[in-house]
Amino acid sequence: MLTAVPAAAGDPTGVAALKADPGKAVDFVWVLLCGFLVMFMQAGFACVESGFCRSKNVTNLLAKNLMDFVVGSLAYWAVGYGVMMGADRLGLFGTSGFFLAGDGYDVDTYLGFFWQMVFAATAATIVSGAVAERLKFQAYLGYAAAVCLVIYPVYGHWAWGGGWLTKLPFGVGFADFAGSGVVHAVGGVVGLAGAMVLGPRFGKYDKNGRPRAIPGHSLTLAALGTFILWFGWFGFNPGSTFSAHHLRIAVIAVNTTLAASAASLVAMLVVLARTGKFDVGMSLNGALAGLVAITAPCAWVNATSAVIIGAVAGALVVAGVLFLEDRGVDDPVGAVSVHGLNGLWGLVAVGLFADGTYGLYSTEAPFVRGLFFGGGADQLVAQLIGVLALVAWAFSTGWIAFKVLDALIGIRVSPREEIQGLDIIEHGTPAYPEFYTLRS
Amino acid sequence: MLTAVPAAAGDPTGVAALKADPGKAVDFVWVLLCGFLVMFMQAGFACVESGFCRSKNVTNLLAKNLMDFVVGSLAYWAVGYGVMMGADRLGLFGTSGFFLAGDGYDVDTYLGFFWQMVFAATAATIVSGAVAERLKFQAYLGYAAAVCLVIYPVYGHWAWGGGWLTKLPFGVGFADFAGSGVVHAVGGVVGLAGAMVLGPRFGKYDKNGRPRAIPGHSLTLAALGTFILWFGWFGFNPGSTFSAHHLRIAVIAVNTTLAASAASLVAMLVVLARTGKFDVGMSLNGALAGLVAITAPCAWVNATSAVIIGAVAGALVVAGVLFLEDRGVDDPVGAVSVHGLNGLWGLVAVGLFADGTYGLYSTEAPFVRGLFFGGGADQLVAQLIGVLALVAWAFSTGWIAFKVLDALIGIRVSPREEIQGLDIIEHGTPAYPEFYTLRS
Amino acid sequence: MLTAVPAAAGDPTGVAALKADPGKAVDFVWVLLCGFLVMFMQAGFACVESGFCRSKNVTNLLAKNLMDFVVGSLAYWAVGYGVMMGADRLGLFGTSGFFLAGDGYDVDTYLGFFWQMVFAATAATIVSGAVAERLKFQAYLGYAAAVCLVIYPVYGHWAWGGGWLTKLPFGVGFADFAGSGVVHAVGGVVGLAGAMVLGPRFGKYDKNGRPRAIPGHSLTLAALGTFILWFGWFGFNPGSTFSAHHLRIAVIAVNTTLAASAASLVAMLVVLARTGKFDVGMSLNGALAGLVAITAPCAWVNATSAVIIGAVAGALVVAGVLFLEDRGVDDPVGAVSVHGLNGLWGLVAVGLFADGTYGLYSTEAPFVRGLFFGGGADQLVAQLIGVLALVAWAFSTGWIAFKVLDALIGIRVSPREEIQGLDIIEHGTPAYPEFYTLRS
Repeated sequence: MLTAVPAAAGDPTGVAALKADPGKAVDFVWVLLCGFLVMFMQAGFACVESGFCRSKNVTNLLAKNLMDFVVGSLAYWAVGYGVMMGADRLGLFGTSGFFLAGDGYDVDTYLGFFWQMVFAATAATIVSGAVAERLKFQAYLGYAAAVCLVIYPVYGHWAWGGGWLTKLPFGVGFADFAGSGVVHAVGGVVGLAGAMVLGPRFGKYDKNGRPRAIPGHSLTLAALGTFILWFGWFGFNPGSTFSAHHLRIAVIAVNTTLAASAASLVAMLVVLARTGKFDVGMSLNGALAGLVAITAPCAWVNATSAVIIGAVAGALVVAGVLFLEDRGVDDPVGAVSVHGLNGLWGLVAVGLFADGTYGLYSTEAPFVRGLFFGGGADQLVAQLIGVLALVAWAFSTGWIAFKVLDALIGIRVSPREEIQGLDIIEHGTPAYPEFYTLRS
Repeated sequence: MLTAVPAAAGDPTGVAALKADPGKAVDFVWVLLCGFLVMFMQAGFACVESGFCRSKNVTNLLAKNLMDFVVGSLAYWAVGYGVMMGADRLGLFGTSGFFLAGDGYDVDTYLGFFWQMVFAATAATIVSGAVAERLKFQAYLGYAAAVCLVIYPVYGHWAWGGGWLTKLPFGVGFADFAGSGVVHAVGGVVGLAGAMVLGPRFGKYDKNGRPRAIPGHSLTLAALGTFILWFGWFGFNPGSTFSAHHLRIAVIAVNTTLAASAASLVAMLVVLARTGKFDVGMSLNGALAGLVAITAPCAWVNATSAVIIGAVAGALVVAGVLFLEDRGVDDPVGAVSVHGLNGLWGLVAVGLFADGTYGLYSTEAPFVRGLFFGGGADQLVAQLIGVLALVAWAFSTGWIAFKVLDALIGIRVSPREEIQGLDIIEHGTPAYPEFYTLRS
Repeated sequence: MLTAVPAAAGDPTGVAALKADPGKAVDFVWVLLCGFLVMFMQAGFACVESGFCRSKNVTNLLAKNLMDFVVGSLAYWAVGYGVMMGADRLGLFGTSGFFLAGDGYDVDTYLGFFWQMVFAATAATIVSGAVAERLKFQAYLGYAAAVCLVIYPVYGHWAWGGGWLTKLPFGVGFADFAGSGVVHAVGGVVGLAGAMVLGPRFGKYDKNGRPRAIPGHSLTLAALGTFILWFGWFGFNPGSTFSAHHLRIAVIAVNTTLAASAASLVAMLVVLARTGKFDVGMSLNGALAGLVAITAPCAWVNATSAVIIGAVAGALVVAGVLFLEDRGVDDPVGAVSVHGLNGLWGLVAVGLFADGTYGLYSTEAPFVRGLFFGGGADQLVAQLIGVLALVAWAFSTGWIAFKVLDALIGIRVSPREEIQGLDIIEHGTPAYPEFYTLRS
């Protein structure tokens, strides 16, 4: 019995897959290690969101950041992966591969699932920042499941799973290399819906309706989280080649860095011009905005374009934060501007800056080429269609999810709980039980 | 002179090794990068243990977590590696390879040493949590040396170094893929011995003998540490193939994730049912428990089994914490339940869930097969023998080590020091000299 | 248009490069992942420096650690890389490759740039610790640009870019494997110049001129940062082979670990002998000192030599801290002793301990051999020339840079700002707005 050849129809041992392509050894190493980096971004999100919020809600934010990965990974394993990457139905969703069952017990399938799972969890975790300090924990669990079961996988199917966006008759079709749109803008737009349904935190606006700053409890934590996210992004973007045999990964790594640097610098300078202060919080969000924006075009542009894309992102994130704040949308950590707005900007940037030196997850033609590099407006049109589809889908489903949850269980904590902080009532303990803190 | 061919009998340059097997380039990359991740787990342990303890003992915990790696790596280089992986003597211990001397100056040997060293240091560091807040620093140094010189290497030799457990006439012999037993249960059981010899902390039990919660000083730190450990575990488990040419690494990565998620969810739900709170500390320990439990079976089971193994681990860790607490064993961070109890569960799970799709660190037969997948009880018997041997060896040597250290230098700090905290007296400085904290 | 072959003269797609050498797939994976680890060291520096300083200056330190990477990476892209690695002029500096323009749009060039960029940023960030708690933020931006535009690239050209140090007629020429000198000593010596130009912090010396300890605000943060740096060093040192086909990477990883462990242990013991306390801060700096010292020789020595080199480093760092402190040089985090002094020691160690088993970034002859391993004094002479050139160049240019900045904009904050802390005035917010802290 112990010496029997495995009987599954897939290839769970991996011998046949390696024999068919010996280069898979290094491809698996590349994709897995990059995937590990992406998973580590969960730590970065936990730190950034906690750091930018008040200490009385930190236990709650840690719980949300842990549980969206926990619930999200299980939901994506059971259903989400099949909806996103399963056999296509009408260009709208996938219909096979649930629970990795049957032929899904295969090394290539497991690798693909691992990669997509850490991406799905990233989309889920983005929202927790936008709805921080007032969303009930149970509602968050429900929302996280909704994102990983339906919202993320369906749009993911359209863009990456063989759905209708991949078949647009413009350029190479909708092109989002590593997920400015699929991951970040989806997360950011759902977060916008959540923040709007919830309304602002107590004390965010004074009696004249003017926004007030509510400082986070630890810039150290926010900075550490940003560095962790930047580190993890080196898995997110270069790993999205899904192959170590595309030496283009070096270009992607450089572009990722320079866009983040340019964005952070511009964000700092813009705030400096407004306030005379070197604002660290906005510089950190600037770096993240640059990373989000370069995520879609990272494989298709050169370093100079990456710097430009990043610089625009740095200005956009400041403008976005001020714009939303002025309109009564309270996004405690800036998630909508960082991930939503700049995710969309990244999609557009593909249609402008793609320079025709790399294909669609391929080193071979057709190459992706945008408006500024002789490609005409075709690719830009495809990108704009993808942008519209994204906003329509993510905002409407996100809005519905939060509204349904609100009708079912109520999504906002009581005023008393919000003022006291969510930690004691929902979780039984503050995050820092020994330290004296200011009430706010 | 400068152009002379290296004269050592080993292959310190690595030219011959690469010529004999060109695939070693990617194997070395895989094993080293995974080993780096395992080393980074030291940061995770430092954060988790510090976060779950009181601020007055944090300097001490940081010192212990640094020094067990420092002392442990040197001790393992000098002696431990030879005892574990050297030429076998009577199936009991190794007898060669000390100090990496002579022919040990060889790229393959150094690679193997690096891998085993970071594992040995992990076993050592697990104990510091169980004996936290009352063990003298000098005693800890003595203990860490004992673990890396003798306790870990001897059991490691039995299980991984060609010792008697590998030659059991049941199934494929005792099988512990990445060290649920060799690393985690050894660490956890030694920790149990230490916690029992030391007795509980002041104030852990009220005058009626009922346990009281002693909250840690920073859930943020505990959560960050857990994410770091989870990240590091992606080196620990998949890297244990010691080869990039086993595409099975993708299955291992998926199983590692899903087991942790299932365990964290179940631990949270179990505590929710008991207390009505979403307990973050237990959810974090749940994730770690799932990671520990899947460590032995990760290469031999499918995703569904990983979810089941993890779910059981999530329940077990809660039960273990309550059981020990009720019996007067004070384990401040839950290390015994997380690493000890679930390490043993992981060993048993191999005998139940191994499905015959992967061999013993090989993609070739004999495959490992357990009770639920047509393998009969043979493998389970091998596992149970390994469990018994582990508990007997680790508990008795751990107990003796702490008792001997107690006789020689005394292992528990004075009551005054324990109440004041260990930081000032042993290390001369608190961890947070600027912050006002509650006395507890 | 979309199917056109890329027209650039370089190879931005990477197809030709891979065809010419299929082994590049694994080499790119190795170099990129190691480079990601090096970039992550920025998080480590941010944590260590913040942890060792007072909470009132933490926002400022975070801003500096973020911005030196941001400004440094852009400056190095625009100019620094060309100065360092461009076409050589008189052995003194490079003259091509600015902005990665033209033929620079090439996968090999981008890979090389990425690697050198994260190294340049490391050199820049080292200085922030030495000048902490009193240097104006604007001056820091100016300094960071100077380091990445001129100071680092010129010395880097001499040592790594085909400059005059590589052509010394002694041994194999000046040999600095991963940058004990090029990166760490340059950073440390510039930091020394900065600390001297600035003068000590208020309160560092009592009225009799005796130094006083100014404890940092969080040992937890310092310890976490040290672990992150150690983790990142596994990219720094082994990745410097720039090839996965040198299996010597296993030896480098082992040496890196053992040197750090030996140094940390010795530093702890030296302080224990002086004060009777197990000093965690010095143990952490000891580990970093060992890492710095082994960085130059890591590829050319065996494990026993690595332990010796590390042990010396552990003693040196303590001596260096006391020596500077006694002479009125106030280096809040010990950066000069850790990176400067031990960087120079690492360069000397190559001339002593290199054992002739590895070449100059090559597995082939000429091998590097030092005084203790039959190589005579030749290599040692080359190393000492490199040491002298480094100190002369880095100290003089560093001194000039700080003096020029002082004349232009003033480099030291006002006494009032220094006492209040730099955070509020320069950045508008403290790092921990909710926590009560002691004034110091």
